[in-house]
Amino acid sequence: MSGRTPTSFTVDDYRARMDRATRAAADAGLAGLLVAPGPDLVWLTGYAPTAVTERLTLLVLTPDRPPVLVVPTLEAPDAAQAPGAEALSLRDWTDGKDPYAATAALLDSTGRFGISDNTWAMHLLGLQRALPDTSHASLTEALPMLRAVKDAAELELMAAAGAAADATFEEIRAVRFAGRRESEVGADLADLLRRFGHEQVDFTIVASGPNGANPHHEVGDRVIEDGDMVVLDFGGLKDGYGSDTSRTVHVGAPDDEERAVHDIVRAAQEAGFRAVRPGAACQDVDRAARQVIVDAGYGEYFIHRTGHGIGVTTHEPPYMIEGEERPLVPGMCFSVEPGIYLPGRFGVRIEDIVTVTEGGGRRLNDTTRELVVVD
Amino acid sequence: MSGRTPTSFTVDDYRARMDRATRAAADAGLAGLLVAPGPDLVWLTGYAPTAVTERLTLLVLTPDRPPVLVVPTLEAPDAAQAPGAEALSLRDWTDGKDPYAATAALLDSTGRFGISDNTWAMHLLGLQRALPDTSHASLTEALPMLRAVKDAAELELMAAAGAAADATFEEIRAVRFAGRRESEVGADLADLLRRFGHEQVDFTIVASGPNGANPHHEVGDRVIEDGDMVVLDFGGLKDGYGSDTSRTVHVGAPDDEERAVHDIVRAAQEAGFRAVRPGAACQDVDRAARQVIVDAGYGEYFIHRTGHGIGVTTHEPPYMIEGEERPLVPGMCFSVEPGIYLPGRFGVRIEDIVTVTEGGGRRLNDTTRELVVVD
Repeated sequence: MSGRTPTSFTVDDYRARMDRATRAAADAGLAGLLVAPGPDLVWLTGYAPTAVTERLTLLVLTPDRPPVLVVPTLEAPDAAQAPGAEALSLRDWTDGKDPYAATAALLDSTGRFGISDNTWAMHLLGLQRALPDTSHASLTEALPMLRAVKDAAELELMAAAGAAADATFEEIRAVRFAGRRESEVGADLADLLRRFGHEQVDFTIVASGPNGANPHHEVGDRVIEDGDMVVLDFGGLKDGYGSDTSRTVHVGAPDDEERAVHDIVRAAQEAGFRAVRPGAACQDVDRAARQVIVDAGYGEYFIHRTGHGIGVTTHEPPYMIEGEERPLVPGMCFSVEPGIYLPGRFGVRIEDIVTVTEGGGRRLNDTTRELVVVD
Repeated sequence: MSGRTPTSFTVDDYRARMDRATRAAADAGLAGLLVAPGPDLVWLTGYAPTAVTERLTLLVLTPDRPPVLVVPTLEAPDAAQAPGAEALSLRDWTDGKDPYAATAALLDSTGRFGISDNTWAMHLLGLQRALPDTSHASLTEALPMLRAVKDAAELELMAAAGAAADATFEEIRAVRFAGRRESEVGADLADLLRRFGHEQVDFTIVASGPNGANPHHEVGDRVIEDGDMVVLDFGGLKDGYGSDTSRTVHVGAPDDEERAVHDIVRAAQEAGFRAVRPGAACQDVDRAARQVIVDAGYGEYFIHRTGHGIGVTTHEPPYMIEGEERPLVPGMCFSVEPGIYLPGRFGVRIEDIVTVTEGGGRRLNDTTRELVVVD
C-alpha cells in the first residue's frame, strides 16, 4: 500500500528516530546506515513505496549531512508525501542512470556501513561494486536494538494490536471447529483480525491434531475432528504495529494426557513471563520456560526458541534464545511462546506478547491460558 | 500464503526448470545459483514459505549434486510439501546453528555464484563471511533471461491473467467516476481483479487530473471531477502469473488537446507493438514508441522506459529501454506502455502485455485503445 503508515507520528518523531539511528551508528563505529524499503524505512521515515522493485530506493544516514533518500524519479512525488519527508532531502535518479554511483557519491569510500537486513542482494552487490573498499553489516547485527525499545506512543499501538488479537480469540473460540477444514477456520481468523482493525494479516495458523506437531504448519485441508487439539497462532499489523498470540484449544473434552501437556506448557509460559524484568538476559526467559518443560520430561519436544521481538515487524530482535545475553530494557516487546510438539500426535503452544516494565513484565495478550474447549 | 503455487505444473516441470537453470549457470561461468524465497524460488520449486523472515531458506543449484534446499527445521515439513520437493533434497538447520556454514559446506569455496535479486542483504553478507573467496552476481545480471521465455503452459496462464485484467476494465468503465475519490475506484479495481481470479493485487493506479502526470501515483483522496482524464493501471497475480494493463479514460467529453494527446499515445503504443518480432532488439520497441511521441513534440513528457518483462513477477527482464540490445525471442512477455505526462495538468498511458510470436507479437490485453468516456 502506498504511503501506508501509522498516523500517530509526526515529522519530529521521524527526525528524532533518524537522529538517534545516525548517532547509534557512529557510536558503533559505522560510517553510516543504508536503509531500503521495508520496516526500518517505515520506522525511520514513514515511507513505504507502492512496490518494492528492482529500482533502488535507499535512505542514507551519515553524520556529516542531513538524511538523504535516494529514489527513482518516478517515485519522487510519492516519497515527497511521506510523513517524514520534511526531515530529509530527496535525491532522485532516472531510468538508465546508475543509482549505485549516485549513492556512492554520498558515502565515505572506505567506510563500514550498516544496511537494512532485507535490502535486496542485487542492491548490496551494486553498492559493493561502486565502492569496493567499503564493507557492510546487516542492521540487525550492527544495531540490533535500534527499534527494540518502544516509546509510549508505540507501546499504545502495540497494546491496541494485542487487544485486537485478543478480541479475535474471543470470537474464534465460539465458532464451529469440528467438521470444518483448517483453512476455513484460518479464513475466519483473517476476517476477524481485519474486523478488529488489522490492515495486514501475517499468519493464521490452525494446526489440528497431528498437524499441531509442526510448529510452522499454517492451514491445510485437514478436516478438524472431535477430539483434536488445535493450535491457533495468528497476527499481523494494526496501525503499523504487530500482534502475535497463540492459544491451543480442544474440540470436545480433552483426555488426561492432553490436559497434562497443556498444563506443562502453561506453566512454562508463566515461568517465562515471570523471568521478564529489566536487566535479566534474554536467554533467562528461554531458560525459565524451557526448564519447566525439561523437568516435566518433554524437553526434546520443545524444538524452537522461546520468543522473538515484535514491533513494526512481527519478528525482530531481541530473541529469547540460549546464548543471547543482552539485557532486557523497559519498553522492549517480545513473544513468550513455549510449546510441546509430539510428532504424529498433537502440539500445544501458548503465546503472549510481553513488554518489559520497570517492575517486571506486562502482558499485551490476556485471554485465558486455560485449555478452552470448542465445538 | 503457505505453499501457494499454480497447480498447472508438475514435479517434472520443476525438475526441468532446475536443470535448465543449473546448466545456464555453468554456461555463464558460474559455480552455481543461490535462490532465496521469492518469485525465482516459486518458479524453480513451487515453494513459497509462509513468511520470509530472518531465518535462511536457500535453494542451492550446483552442477555436481542434485538441488538442495537449505531450510529452517521448523519449516522443513512445509517445504517437503512443495510441488517441486521430490526433485530436491532438504537440508535443515535448527535455531542457534549457523545456516551460512551449513550452506558453505555445499559450495565451491572460490566460485562465483548467481544469487536471486531479492535475497536479503543479511543473508548475502552471511554467505560472504562464511566463504570470503567467493563472489556473487545478482540473478538478473547473471542470467537475465532465465525466466523470460515462457513455455506453452505459462503462456496460457499469462493469457488468462490478461483476460481477467481486461474483464476488470470492461466493468470499471461502467462505474461512476465523477464525485468519487480515486481510492474508491481503486478499491473497485481491486475487488474486480479478485472477482476475476487474481489471488494477489499488486497495484491499482487511479490517477485523475493533475495526479495523472505522476506515472507512479497510486490512489489518493482526490475527488474525481467531470472533465478529468484518469489513468487506470492495474494488475497482480492470477494463478501465479502477472497481469498489468493501463487505459486512460475521460470523465465526460474530452477537449481537443486531451483527445490529441491520447491519439499520440495510442499511435506510440501501436508503433511499439508493431516493432515486436523475433530478433528485434528490446530497445527497438522503446525507440519505435518514443519516436512517435518525439515527432509529435511531446518527447520531454515521456519520462520512463516503454516496457518491462512480466511473468511470476510483474516487473522483470527483458526491459524495453534504450541501450538494451538483447534480441526478442518467441515466448517473451512484456509491457508496451508509452505515456505523456503534462505536469500540473494530466497524463495519458496505454499499456498492453505483449508476447513475442514467430510472426511478430500478440497482445494479451485487447480492450479498446480508443479514449473511453466514463461518467
